[in-house]
Amino acid sequence: MRSLLDLVLIDLYECVHERLLDAEDIKDAMLAAARLMGAEVIGHSFHTFKPWGVSGTVTIAESHLAVHTWPEYNFAAITFETCGHRMDHKKAYKHLIEFFGPKSPKITHQKRGFVDSEVEEIHLRQEVG
Amino acid sequence: MRSLLDLVLIDLYECVHERLLDAEDIKDAMLAAARLMGAEVIGHSFHTFKPWGVSGTVTIAESHLAVHTWPEYNFAAITFETCGHRMDHKKAYKHLIEFFGPKSPKITHQKRGFVDSEVEEIHLRQEVG
Repeated sequence: MRSLLDLVLIDLYECVHERLLDAEDIKDAMLAAARLMGAEVIGHSFHTFKPWGVSGTVTIAESHLAVHTWPEYNFAAITFETCGHRMDHKKAYKHLIEFFGPKSPKITHQKRGFVDSEVEEIHLRQEVG
Repeated sequence: MRSLLDLVLIDLYECVHERLLDAEDIKDAMLAAARLMGAEVIGHSFHTFKPWGVSGTVTIAESHLAVHTWPEYNFAAITFETCGHRMDHKKAYKHLIEFFGPKSPKITHQKRGFVDSEVEEIHLRQEVG
């Protein structure tokens, strides 16, 4: 069954503490990851919290990327949600792993948006119409 | 084991076609959902694609919300990623279901960012230090 979206959850444990603090640095790393993936960046929004922690999203033509950091746990959670079959997720998360320097990265892949029945129905309607 | 993040995937099949087309309308619905959830909105980025389709992200103090629509399949994929235990996801996705009018909504909940060992380690260090 065909799916519309790839969801990649990148949980980075035991990161280099200093890399989790600055929204500008993290924005640069996430935009570089988007480019390495082959995505077209549409917009972004990053924020540094007090006393610490960074949240950011990157809207891409192929969906979005997001990052949230917990310096108090040396932890960062990154999400890639993309459509199409041309996205090089691996190149992108390798760059982020290099940036955040986690001792223990955990990466999981999921699919969502299953549309085969709808696609078939549309084709059928087009043939009938 | 304690987790840092709640991930809610809201897949809306057979939506009202017209609701999937306009970034301004969808932005209003997503910002309303963020408020209903009890989140603090930090920033957002929405875009209407040609020939059609909308992508948008809302950065919140508690992480992020995202939406991507496929009018050709009458499908919308919405993601809530939030931390803390005060977020009212149900109130938020009820609002979005009302807005998009899907005949077949599918909602799944996941957890990510498991940190108990680190938390215990920090407490231990604080006690020792």
